Amino acid sequence: MQRQIKLIKRPKGTPTYEDFELVEGPIGEPSAGEILVRTVYISVDPYLRGRMNEGKSYIPPFGLNEVISSGVIGQVVESRSERFAKGDVVLGSLGWQEYSVVKDSSVRKVDQHLAPASAYLSVLGMTGLTAYFGLLDIGKPKEGETVVVSGAAGAVGSTVGQIAKIKGARVVGIAGSDEKVKFLVDELGFDAAINYNTEDVATALREACPNGIDVYFENVGGKIGDAVFPLLNNFARIPVCGAISGYNNAEGDVGPRVQSYLIKTSSLMQGFTVGNYGSRFGEGARELAGWLKEGKLKYEETITEGFDHTIDAFLDLFKGANLGKALVKVAEIE
Amino acid sequence: MQRQIKLIKRPKGTPTYEDFELVEGPIGEPSAGEILVRTVYISVDPYLRGRMNEGKSYIPPFGLNEVISSGVIGQVVESRSERFAKGDVVLGSLGWQEYSVVKDSSVRKVDQHLAPASAYLSVLGMTGLTAYFGLLDIGKPKEGETVVVSGAAGAVGSTVGQIAKIKGARVVGIAGSDEKVKFLVDELGFDAAINYNTEDVATALREACPNGIDVYFENVGGKIGDAVFPLLNNFARIPVCGAISGYNNAEGDVGPRVQSYLIKTSSLMQGFTVGNYGSRFGEGARELAGWLKEGKLKYEETITEGFDHTIDAFLDLFKGANLGKALVKVAEIE
Repeated sequence: MQRQIKLIKRPKGTPTYEDFELVEGPIGEPSAGEILVRTVYISVDPYLRGRMNEGKSYIPPFGLNEVISSGVIGQVVESRSERFAKGDVVLGSLGWQEYSVVKDSSVRKVDQHLAPASAYLSVLGMTGLTAYFGLLDIGKPKEGETVVVSGAAGAVGSTVGQIAKIKGARVVGIAGSDEKVKFLVDELGFDAAINYNTEDVATALREACPNGIDVYFENVGGKIGDAVFPLLNNFARIPVCGAISGYNNAEGDVGPRVQSYLIKTSSLMQGFTVGNYGSRFGEGARELAGWLKEGKLKYEETITEGFDHTIDAFLDLFKGANLGKALVKVAEIE
Repeated sequence: MQRQIKLIKRPKGTPTYEDFELVEGPIGEPSAGEILVRTVYISVDPYLRGRMNEGKSYIPPFGLNEVISSGVIGQVVESRSERFAKGDVVLGSLGWQEYSVVKDSSVRKVDQHLAPASAYLSVLGMTGLTAYFGLLDIGKPKEGETVVVSGAAGAVGSTVGQIAKIKGARVVGIAGSDEKVKFLVDELGFDAAINYNTEDVATALREACPNGIDVYFENVGGKIGDAVFPLLNNFARIPVCGAISGYNNAEGDVGPRVQSYLIKTSSLMQGFTVGNYGSRFGEGARELAGWLKEGKLKYEETITEGFDHTIDAFLDLFKGANLGKALVKVAEIE
C-alpha cells in the first residue's frame, strides 16, 4: 500500500486542510511499455490553485476525489519498457502519491551531470521556461531598460530577474520579507528590491525606478500590480504570468481599471502559460542550462521533507513562505 | 475680429460650460510661407478630454487660457505660399476659432473628388486610421472569428465594425440607444448589436457571442469592458483605444482586475494611439479610400451647426449623443 493525496472539496478562498484527504491506496503493477516510479520530489506551485476550481482555464480542473498531480521527479523501481532501466531518474506530471505506474512515453530522463535532479522542477523545468518565455517573448527587455518583477523571490520571479540582468536591464524585485529582499540584491544581483509588507510599494517603486518602468513581469496582481501602472513608460510590456494575490479571493478581485494607463503609454499586457511555447522548450532549456553552467543563473529551493507534509507545503505558498522553488522531498535517490 | 474658444479651467469630472470661454480675438496676417484659413469643420473628439487634464499622456495637455485645437477642415482665404491658392480646402490641427494663420507645411489639401471634405475628419482621417491600425495591427481578426466593439456607433467604432466585416469576422456592436443598435445592424451590416442602456450587457453578450470573443475593440472601458473579459477565447486580442466611461471619473475608475482573465486565456491587451502608426498613414488612407469607393465602408456624421455651438457639441460626446463622427460646421465651402 502507499499514501496518496486527493482533492475532496473545491476550495472557497484560501485552501485549507479540509479540502484534501491523505488516503491509502494500492501500488500499481506496470504492464508492457510501462514503468513503476517511486516519487522523489513533488513540485508545489501556485497555479495548481486554479486547477482546484471548476470551470474553464488553460488546463482542465482536477477531478473531485481524484489524486492531485503536478511536476514530479521520480526513480524507476521496475521497468517493463526498453527505454528505461531500474534506477533511472525521470521527470513527468505525476500524482501526489508515493508510487506511480506510467507509460514510458509520459516521462523523460534527466541529466544529473548538468544539475541536481530537483533543478528539473525549477530552473531547468517549467518554472525556468515560464520565466524565459514570458520575459523574453513578451517582455522583450532591452539593455538599460527597467524591469520590475513581483513575486521576485519565488521560483519564476527569481529566474526572471536574473535573465533580465543577463540581458543588461536594471532589475527591481518586489517580495514579502527583508530576508527575501536581501537575497535578491546580495545573492542574485538585483539592482533594488522592495518589501511589500513594510514599505509603501508605490513610493518605493518611484524611488527605485527613477526612469520609469519598461517591463513589469506580473506574478501577483492585486495592489502590487496597481502600484506599477502609473509608472509605466511608453510602449511598456507586461507579461502576465500569475495573480496569486487574487487566486484565493472568493469575493472578487477589484482594483483600478487598467485601460487608461495602457492607452496613455501604448503599453501591452499579455497573459501566457508556458504551454504556449511547447515547440520551443528545447531552445529555452538549452539557454537556461548554459547560463546555469556559466554561473550566471542561481536558484534556490525551499524543500519540505516528507510526503505527509505535501499539503503544508502547498498551503505555505499562499503565505509567501517559500524562497525560490517550493518542493516536497518524498524519498532519496538511490 | 473673430471668435475663439479657450480652456480656462481644468475640468473636474465631466466638463461643463464654466471650463471654457468664448472670446473675441484678432484675425492674424499671414507672413511669407503662411496662409490664412477660414474654419469650415471642427472635429470634436473624446480624446480631447484627456488633453484638458494636466500631466503626462501621449500628447501634451492644452495650456490654460489658450485656444483649444483639434482636427479642422478649412478653406484658404489668403495665401502667401506657392503651395496653396485661395479657395483650396485644407486639413490640419488648428485652433477652435473662425480663422487661423498657419505655415504651409502644417496643413494638406484634401481631394474632394474622392469624398466630401468632412470625411477627412472621420473615415479618411484620424478616426478612420485609428480604427484601421488598432483593429488590424493589434486585433488581427481572422475570418469567422467574433469581434466585439464598444462605442460601436461612434466614429471609430462604426469603422472598426465595418473593417472587421470586410475581413470576414462576425461583428457584435455595443451602443447606447435602440436607434444606434438599429443603425449598426440595418445600415452597417453588424451581425448583432446590444443597447447597454436597456440590456444586461453580460447576458446579451453571451447570447450574441455563442462562440466566445476573439477580438474586443475597447472604446469605452468601465462596466462594458468588464462584461467582456469572462467571455474571451484563448489568445484573444484587445486593442485599447479609449475608455470614455472613465475620462470624467474624478473618483477613480475601479472594477474587476483583468490579470486572471488574461492568464486563463493567454489574451493580449494593448493600448495604442494612432500616432504610433505615423509611418504607415499612407497605407491606411489608401485602403480606407478604396473601401469607401467600393461602397464597403459607410460613415455617418452628427453635425452641429455654428461656431457658437462648439462647446455643446463637445459636451454632447459624453452623453453619447452622436452617431458616427461629431463635427461642428462653422462655414460653407465657397
